Amino acid sequence: MGNMGAGIAANLIKAGHEVTVYNRSRPKVDALVAAGARPADTVADACGGDVVLTMLANDDAVAGVAFGDGGIIASAAPGTVHISSSTISVGLSKRLTEAHATAGRGFVSAPVFGRPEAAAAAALFVVAAGPADTVNSVTPVFDAIGQRTFVVSEEPAAANLVKLSGNFLIGSVIESLGEAMALVDRGGVDKHQYLDILTSTLFSAPVYRTYGSLIASEQFEPAGFAAPLGHKDIGLVLAAAEELRVPLPIASLLRDRFLRLLAEGGEQLDWSAISSLAARDAGASDHSA
Amino acid sequence: MGNMGAGIAANLIKAGHEVTVYNRSRPKVDALVAAGARPADTVADACGGDVVLTMLANDDAVAGVAFGDGGIIASAAPGTVHISSSTISVGLSKRLTEAHATAGRGFVSAPVFGRPEAAAAAALFVVAAGPADTVNSVTPVFDAIGQRTFVVSEEPAAANLVKLSGNFLIGSVIESLGEAMALVDRGGVDKHQYLDILTSTLFSAPVYRTYGSLIASEQFEPAGFAAPLGHKDIGLVLAAAEELRVPLPIASLLRDRFLRLLAEGGEQLDWSAISSLAARDAGASDHSA
Amino acid sequence: MGNMGAGIAANLIKAGHEVTVYNRSRPKVDALVAAGARPADTVADACGGDVVLTMLANDDAVAGVAFGDGGIIASAAPGTVHISSSTISVGLSKRLTEAHATAGRGFVSAPVFGRPEAAAAAALFVVAAGPADTVNSVTPVFDAIGQRTFVVSEEPAAANLVKLSGNFLIGSVIESLGEAMALVDRGGVDKHQYLDILTSTLFSAPVYRTYGSLIASEQFEPAGFAAPLGHKDIGLVLAAAEELRVPLPIASLLRDRFLRLLAEGGEQLDWSAISSLAARDAGASDHSA
Amino acid sequence: MGNMGAGIAANLIKAGHEVTVYNRSRPKVDALVAAGARPADTVADACGGDVVLTMLANDDAVAGVAFGDGGIIASAAPGTVHISSSTISVGLSKRLTEAHATAGRGFVSAPVFGRPEAAAAAALFVVAAGPADTVNSVTPVFDAIGQRTFVVSEEPAAANLVKLSGNFLIGSVIESLGEAMALVDRGGVDKHQYLDILTSTLFSAPVYRTYGSLIASEQFEPAGFAAPLGHKDIGLVLAAAEELRVPLPIASLLRDRFLRLLAEGGEQLDWSAISSLAARDAGASDHSA
Repeated sequence: MGNMGAGIAANLIKAGHEVTVYNRSRPKVDALVAAGARPADTVADACGGDVVLTMLANDDAVAGVAFGDGGIIASAAPGTVHISSSTISVGLSKRLTEAHATAGRGFVSAPVFGRPEAAAAAALFVVAAGPADTVNSVTPVFDAIGQRTFVVSEEPAAANLVKLSGNFLIGSVIESLGEAMALVDRGGVDKHQYLDILTSTLFSAPVYRTYGSLIASEQFEPAGFAAPLGHKDIGLVLAAAEELRVPLPIASLLRDRFLRLLAEGGEQLDWSAISSLAARDAGASDHSA
Repeated sequence: MGNMGAGIAANLIKAGHEVTVYNRSRPKVDALVAAGARPADTVADACGGDVVLTMLANDDAVAGVAFGDGGIIASAAPGTVHISSSTISVGLSKRLTEAHATAGRGFVSAPVFGRPEAAAAAALFVVAAGPADTVNSVTPVFDAIGQRTFVVSEEPAAANLVKLSGNFLIGSVIESLGEAMALVDRGGVDKHQYLDILTSTLFSAPVYRTYGSLIASEQFEPAGFAAPLGHKDIGLVLAAAEELRVPLPIASLLRDRFLRLLAEGGEQLDWSAISSLAARDAGASDHSA
Repeated sequence: MGNMGAGIAANLIKAGHEVTVYNRSRPKVDALVAAGARPADTVADACGGDVVLTMLANDDAVAGVAFGDGGIIASAAPGTVHISSSTISVGLSKRLTEAHATAGRGFVSAPVFGRPEAAAAAALFVVAAGPADTVNSVTPVFDAIGQRTFVVSEEPAAANLVKLSGNFLIGSVIESLGEAMALVDRGGVDKHQYLDILTSTLFSAPVYRTYGSLIASEQFEPAGFAAPLGHKDIGLVLAAAEELRVPLPIASLLRDRFLRLLAEGGEQLDWSAISSLAARDAGASDHSA
Repeated sequence: MGNMGAGIAANLIKAGHEVTVYNRSRPKVDALVAAGARPADTVADACGGDVVLTMLANDDAVAGVAFGDGGIIASAAPGTVHISSSTISVGLSKRLTEAHATAGRGFVSAPVFGRPEAAAAAALFVVAAGPADTVNSVTPVFDAIGQRTFVVSEEPAAANLVKLSGNFLIGSVIESLGEAMALVDRGGVDKHQYLDILTSTLFSAPVYRTYGSLIASEQFEPAGFAAPLGHKDIGLVLAAAEELRVPLPIASLLRDRFLRLLAEGGEQLDWSAISSLAARDAGASDHSA
């Protein structure tokens, strides 16, 4: 339970739900317990309610709590609904769908858009997918944690595809801004003023403001979302696209950018640091190293 | 004088400037004359004021009125300032800069961001570049036609680079949205709902709303900005980048997309139709043809 | 045991080795038995010699005979050397290396370059990797089946990397020839004559003659090496490159080409059919469909 | 008249033709005069024969001797045939075709494949295009300088397209070898041995031997064919492809590679140095700098 999970749990408590919380390390749990949550010592111990919601770092972490003895699928009662809100692969989402169906549990995939502040403010956007009845049954959960819920499909994995594709689009903005700024910088234009022009006009969206500012400042540390995570997510997008046989040339380019950044030792940088490669290729000296 | 020029001229008249208008065909001129403008029969006849503003379709049109006997450079009085607001190449902007300097005229490059409605509402964003004194001397013109002016450089061509790079960024949005929508469509997600998710969250900018809607609907006719114009502008971006030695992999991809669209007969389609290629490559039948 | 394995086994018999052969279906075995081989009814039954050589279609097939009860690793005697000549992933090669080491068996990775005719003629090129002693101990096997052996590393997986990279280079030739032929065809040049010029000059290599002829003729059926196999091998190259953090932009392009070909229904075509996409993008009507 | 032209002229003399030679600087001319050539003081003075053959560095040089007062077109007698053997753009070839037609001179485009040694040995490959009668009338010239002539079209520019596309294919080999070597190098394989494997098998062509050796050795100086020339030729290929509306993704990649190499200061390196970028992106330290 990271910052995202803590915010979500707090809002569920506020909304009057009985909440049991489990985290591998205890400190994060304590604050929630103070707010009214019941602490669980094991995953199985956290599976007694009507709904089990997971918000974890990656596929391995989710698979680790879902499968096996003492995992969610084995421990939850028939009729329990598992809501998976982590950014996981389409493949794992399908495995979870099958395993829950076999075990007679409900499963809804519900990744969210929003940062920890939005989670804390119950202002997330929830992208949910699963059988209509099951999704309907957990609507109060989504209402408690987000400002709006989009139900996109009866197939849980579709929600994961939407979430991953969103990260692909953010990566595309980073790369295209990196290229555009490398160009105008070479042409003698101030990058911050350039960004101001963009975000005052057609590009007045948070994604341009947030990443544009990092790119113009070449401010890639500390990482808000580290390069290896961006690399991983683009890999998950490409894996999903491979399965569906959808060529994604910009995603292929992004993958190559991340490989290069990591090969050069950029593990600790923010994923927006791939923008520095366009600048470097234009002969700019490397300010980030 | 197209829709952009007509709006600009009307606002200059409203602001109290004496305006002389010239257009190859007369009807557009008549409405402005009714509003108080003086009609000119030749380019030279339109060069008698302190400022000559050109707003034309492309390099050839601008070069056609600027150079040669009876052109702006030959006809304007010493001290006259030529404001070029067309989307032209960096190369032509440099040629104009030199020619005006040699002839003792002022030159400011001032392309604008905004559609015809913004031009009519005096709500354009003006990106201006030129010697500080010259730019300052024509500020009242910018104030009359736009909501905000960004002065980006003392080199006029820098403003053209900014404008062209903006069109490159729009093209990048079109391509990346085309790829993302091809992907989620294959995954069973409704494209309009997908766009709603995007524009409700990180991508809440006009460029996503406008182009996303065209892409989701596969509505590429009638063209708001035709594919050959998009192709031309990406070519100008690449030419400017070539000169500055800036590799732009996404621009290269866009160029290949436009070539393919045109090779397939897409001349009359909106430039956002390059998005249909990603869908087609994923095996979607071609709804646009 | 496909055509490759049959040729290899026949040459081992000719060279005087005692050969036991195993194949899932019997007919291929019979001809070799007639030539002096001993037939085996199970994989385990084929593991009694000093050397076990596998030549199978893909990772799954090799893993299927190597691991598990009755598999090579469990069945072979200590000191037996397993030679893997299939085109498998770097990852599987590493798994085999570890498993054999743990079990006290020797392991040499030795993929080959050459078609079935070369296998039949003992004219293969063997790319071998493994501990020097182990490789030396099986040199007589390589001498019996190939015209030349290249020992590239003490790490078995390095041989697989070389083999896979060779398929990447062939794919690059197919794509670049496809683009070049699309171009000269549009320029009114006969593609067969063009190929004649290329192969008479700098490009006088089998890869250009073989694939150039297929591409110029748009002759993609029957498949010599089917598109899904090309797709798979490029995927293995990219996976190996991912592990080593090596961006390979042409491999990324090839992957997208294969995805598109398969999305369009090209499963049964030769992998050189990706060349038709460049022609199609140039507006050529599709002669292959 | 560089090394190519000198070899060609010497072979024309040997074959018994009367040869007049013109070069901007005199020394190269002297050796040919000693062999029997007549020296010319001006371009016009070299236009008195039945055939005028030009072998120059680039478009500007060819345009400089062809057009204008005292140029070939103005100076040659009606019926004279101009053979252009330089590597020039498709666009210039078309301009020459028109200008000669207007002036009543014959024009054959006949670029050659081969290095200076092949020129000296009368072993060039000639790719000729032009009206059949005109090409036939100059066959003895081609027989004197080359080992084989390919007549590819009645349109002169088609021969230039073939020549340029050949340089594109060489560039593709350089890039793909660069990527493959970066990969196997990271996997612990010796690059020279790797090249030996390639050229012993499917890739046994001069282009792989020549460039593979430079790439494996990272030996990019002195330049056999300098990076700016490679950059220029890929630009000419893309310009020709633009005109014909043929997307060439590998050529786009090559263009970006050259821009990067030049932006980093690689002007004096051989064009095969673009291969070092793949190695660098994989984290290799830069041995060439």
